Amino acid sequence: MPAPLRFALIGAGRIGRVHASTIAQHPAATLVLVCDPVAEASLAVASAHGARSCTDTADVFGAADVDVVVIGSPTSLHPEHILASVRAGKPALCEKPVAMELAVAEELGSRLADHPDVPVMMGFNRRFDPSFAKARALVADGQVGELEQLTIISRDPAAPSSDYLAGSGGIFKDMTIHDFDTARFFLGDVTSVTATGQHLDPALAGSGDFDGAVIVLQTATSAVATIVNSRHCATGYDQRLEAFGPKGSILAENHRPTTVRLSTAASSDAQDPYLDFFLERYADAYREELTAFIDAVVAGRPVSPTVADGIAALRIAEAAAQSARTGRTVHL
Amino acid sequence: MPAPLRFALIGAGRIGRVHASTIAQHPAATLVLVCDPVAEASLAVASAHGARSCTDTADVFGAADVDVVVIGSPTSLHPEHILASVRAGKPALCEKPVAMELAVAEELGSRLADHPDVPVMMGFNRRFDPSFAKARALVADGQVGELEQLTIISRDPAAPSSDYLAGSGGIFKDMTIHDFDTARFFLGDVTSVTATGQHLDPALAGSGDFDGAVIVLQTATSAVATIVNSRHCATGYDQRLEAFGPKGSILAENHRPTTVRLSTAASSDAQDPYLDFFLERYADAYREELTAFIDAVVAGRPVSPTVADGIAALRIAEAAAQSARTGRTVHL
Amino acid sequence: MPAPLRFALIGAGRIGRVHASTIAQHPAATLVLVCDPVAEASLAVASAHGARSCTDTADVFGAADVDVVVIGSPTSLHPEHILASVRAGKPALCEKPVAMELAVAEELGSRLADHPDVPVMMGFNRRFDPSFAKARALVADGQVGELEQLTIISRDPAAPSSDYLAGSGGIFKDMTIHDFDTARFFLGDVTSVTATGQHLDPALAGSGDFDGAVIVLQTATSAVATIVNSRHCATGYDQRLEAFGPKGSILAENHRPTTVRLSTAASSDAQDPYLDFFLERYADAYREELTAFIDAVVAGRPVSPTVADGIAALRIAEAAAQSARTGRTVHL
Amino acid sequence: MPAPLRFALIGAGRIGRVHASTIAQHPAATLVLVCDPVAEASLAVASAHGARSCTDTADVFGAADVDVVVIGSPTSLHPEHILASVRAGKPALCEKPVAMELAVAEELGSRLADHPDVPVMMGFNRRFDPSFAKARALVADGQVGELEQLTIISRDPAAPSSDYLAGSGGIFKDMTIHDFDTARFFLGDVTSVTATGQHLDPALAGSGDFDGAVIVLQTATSAVATIVNSRHCATGYDQRLEAFGPKGSILAENHRPTTVRLSTAASSDAQDPYLDFFLERYADAYREELTAFIDAVVAGRPVSPTVADGIAALRIAEAAAQSARTGRTVHL
Repeated sequence: MPAPLRFALIGAGRIGRVHASTIAQHPAATLVLVCDPVAEASLAVASAHGARSCTDTADVFGAADVDVVVIGSPTSLHPEHILASVRAGKPALCEKPVAMELAVAEELGSRLADHPDVPVMMGFNRRFDPSFAKARALVADGQVGELEQLTIISRDPAAPSSDYLAGSGGIFKDMTIHDFDTARFFLGDVTSVTATGQHLDPALAGSGDFDGAVIVLQTATSAVATIVNSRHCATGYDQRLEAFGPKGSILAENHRPTTVRLSTAASSDAQDPYLDFFLERYADAYREELTAFIDAVVAGRPVSPTVADGIAALRIAEAAAQSARTGRTVHL
Repeated sequence: MPAPLRFALIGAGRIGRVHASTIAQHPAATLVLVCDPVAEASLAVASAHGARSCTDTADVFGAADVDVVVIGSPTSLHPEHILASVRAGKPALCEKPVAMELAVAEELGSRLADHPDVPVMMGFNRRFDPSFAKARALVADGQVGELEQLTIISRDPAAPSSDYLAGSGGIFKDMTIHDFDTARFFLGDVTSVTATGQHLDPALAGSGDFDGAVIVLQTATSAVATIVNSRHCATGYDQRLEAFGPKGSILAENHRPTTVRLSTAASSDAQDPYLDFFLERYADAYREELTAFIDAVVAGRPVSPTVADGIAALRIAEAAAQSARTGRTVHL
Repeated sequence: MPAPLRFALIGAGRIGRVHASTIAQHPAATLVLVCDPVAEASLAVASAHGARSCTDTADVFGAADVDVVVIGSPTSLHPEHILASVRAGKPALCEKPVAMELAVAEELGSRLADHPDVPVMMGFNRRFDPSFAKARALVADGQVGELEQLTIISRDPAAPSSDYLAGSGGIFKDMTIHDFDTARFFLGDVTSVTATGQHLDPALAGSGDFDGAVIVLQTATSAVATIVNSRHCATGYDQRLEAFGPKGSILAENHRPTTVRLSTAASSDAQDPYLDFFLERYADAYREELTAFIDAVVAGRPVSPTVADGIAALRIAEAAAQSARTGRTVHL
Repeated sequence: MPAPLRFALIGAGRIGRVHASTIAQHPAATLVLVCDPVAEASLAVASAHGARSCTDTADVFGAADVDVVVIGSPTSLHPEHILASVRAGKPALCEKPVAMELAVAEELGSRLADHPDVPVMMGFNRRFDPSFAKARALVADGQVGELEQLTIISRDPAAPSSDYLAGSGGIFKDMTIHDFDTARFFLGDVTSVTATGQHLDPALAGSGDFDGAVIVLQTATSAVATIVNSRHCATGYDQRLEAFGPKGSILAENHRPTTVRLSTAASSDAQDPYLDFFLERYADAYREELTAFIDAVVAGRPVSPTVADGIAALRIAEAAAQSARTGRTVHL
């Protein structure tokens, strides 16, 4: 067994704590350094896993005992942190989205071209969810033929705070970006986007943002992806997809905490609500994502998904926002 | 299209009305005569379907325009009505059980040997249920290999009246008899019976009868059937079976009136309760049973299940009652 | 029991035969006359059910023993047959769509205004499907709150012949028209339509028609309906919908011929393919539709859905075709 | 956060490795010592988790830095190891069954009465499976009323080697013992046992052991438990139960590695085979079991299930073997 890969983590917020815990429990990884401008946050996460803490990212990029970096900082800092990590020769795994603005992301993309040997992987965790990954593998295996229609239902259990929403970049960059990547994971590049937004919460009416949306993506083949989003779902975190081809279809159903079914005089086979949110629903996916990153780095193989994938998803998100605003299909 | 087969019905009670309606709607059948000692009952069923009515079975067996007879009279009269029908040269379809006492049934069986050309079919409707029939066909097709274990869950929605129960012959002859036939349908002849009875309703404690039971049947092969019965089930008429073999298993699930599933904050995918009782659950089965009877009679082919099947099921029922009483396995 | 309502049927093609059989088996209906310009077709259907046949619709509208008319003629003749039936004072049940062109349908609508006392019901059978109807009833009962998103998956088992397609009016008028009506059944009036068409069969590329489509409907409330269509589905007739609201969601699942589930070393709980096509899948719906028509006519209550509903669905269909062609949302 | 509880593990075989890994990953536990007479086995497990190894259990019971002991030694050594652990003042978690012979187990039980302050917990892991535990909690919550029938389907994926079987104590002590405990977990004490054994593998015919069995347990109330066992199941590790009461029923379904469902022309909604075997199926249960043990030890609360539970299950197992041999119900 080789020595575990030594990780630094930038960002000790909610998603940072997920990564810290996933790294700490991974047999091929060890967490050595946690960095956050808020010293208490940094220290708390670091000490829970026996790691050092710091508040300046310069300490991360200069640390000799850090092999790789996980970036869970605010989105606006992703490009800066990715670039610094690459310049320090440290492979990076960065949370989505790659940047808030497509132009910034593209600028980053062109700068990274100078560093082809240092891999940067985007944290599109759903590609690594065992159910979605198996669905994709069955498609690749030809079980349903060449895909014709992909239908993604993706609903959060409850809307985040208005503070979070104000800085989120909007539903398409914050939430649907995962589904855009899932669509590309199954269908490849997208050629046009048609989006419809909803204001289910009337308070959003003047915000330019939406809390419900339906987005239709056309691709270079004749396949179409349909994404149905909502910021709330009473039954929990609603994450399903159906891949349809000429030979059949593949459904990845919701996950529930147990297999219990209750039958009474009122109804039969009632199951648990869905797992509550992404930490529970995608716990396996975060672990598999980390494994994929470690395996690629250790073996010197290319990582996937890449920053280019992050840019592609962001491009779709901007097109979706434009389409929802204009009522017109946007061609990419 | 040949002329419809002309049916007489003996018995205008609950099960008689089921048969009357099934016959009336069947494209290859016509109901010409209904007989019941209660004249109003007979008349009511007959007039609803444009048939004549009578109160004396002699009128049935002597009617020139009656090709075949469906017997839905009280169990104690089944042997007499079967024999009279056969002697009149009219093929009969008789409700289960064939008789109340095994000795009587065996006596009937030996008398019928004198009339090999007039078929008598027993109304074990579950053999004709599309789901059970398909399960049986998959077994015959070798999909799961030679059966090793058959598990039947069979629960009525609610216990019948104490009056009904007093004349029912007990749970094994009245209710489990269907499951005994189903076990034979899948596994063939039974060699030993081990039964455990329950008094879920304490009022039954001194009755010699039970309202819950578990019966284990061994067969000439190494296969075993387990039957779980209850006289009540809050969710409806609970009718399932699972056939298990070395290559897999086949489950026939409960039926529900719609495919609707409700998900709320409390639970996900809650379905309708099961169909309420045998009229709804086995409506298709009664129709298929009638079709099988008509097809066999018209084509001159043997019917199935036969009176011998009825006797075999009754023999198991008596053994089950003995086993439940003694706590010992009864060998057949 | 009142005397059965006396029906004439116009059109002895595939859908006409469905109606003939449904009428013949309905306890409150009797089929007295079948009309089709092809005398053999007319005669064949009529004689199978003991009815008279004719080739001229004038014989239908003039028949004193015909109470009501079911219109299953080619779509182009619907307006003429509806109008003639109404003028003859005979309530009519007409197959969808109401006409091929919206302008023609609207013209019909204005003429029918002169005959407010003779009801005309449109045969949108899915409103009467027990599963869809129960889903709708649960919504009306407030089980999931005010609907926010409706997702309809609607796929035919196999594309019709190119001859049929050439005269079909295109996928939106021929196939999606049912889903447009279902959307209106759940959500009320539609305010805008955004459609994307697919050419899954490359032969359709120059035809102006599509064999796959995704249509997004906005309504007067903030609710949105998404319809995913395909002209083929390997697993059978794929007819599902999900109604989503703030308190939960309601799924109407596909129907299968049995409840059997097969588990082997390769997979678990594999079920039957879906029922093959509309005759099987919507058999109950045709019967319930006929019952609703009879009940309304006999009681003198308004029928539903009406010709106005047919016109509304046709209006959406024309908008969808325009949107698919232009890539722009069409406002109604 | 208190200091982690320091564990020693006795037995470095298959089940020992499961416990080592569960302890090592548990946030409130640390593995300090592994003991196995085979030095390489002991060393291999110990070094994988940074623990010391030894070959003599005296080193375990005398170790000052060992708080508690997990016993995964061969069954014949369980009583000796439990007693030594208790005498050393170290709480123990012991694998099932408590002993090979009921008399030995009862002797152990009486000796443990002298050490009431040192808890010994039996490793009946299924009580801690989230699905079974939730089913039990729903029962306790009165969701289905007082239980009347419990049906347990419990099948291993494939029979163990004949060497293993020869030393296993037979199917009832080795395999069904888990189901006996589950029955007691739901229904309390058992008053009589009726068992039927199968020789699905003809090679077992003369062995006195079985590879299939149906066992019916009666309890002090009128409730009955039915257990269906098989040593093989093509679809995987088949572990289900259904608890039935007057108000409804609770089903704990099988677990599958993903939620993927495949629909083709041949079948619909085919799911993955079941999880392969107990390590995968009960991974959560082992963790929850360990948590329950730690929580009870740390808080000074009684453990559950106890050695008395282990003795009760063993008593049922011996009665089942006797019943299967004699064909008679055995009363306890």
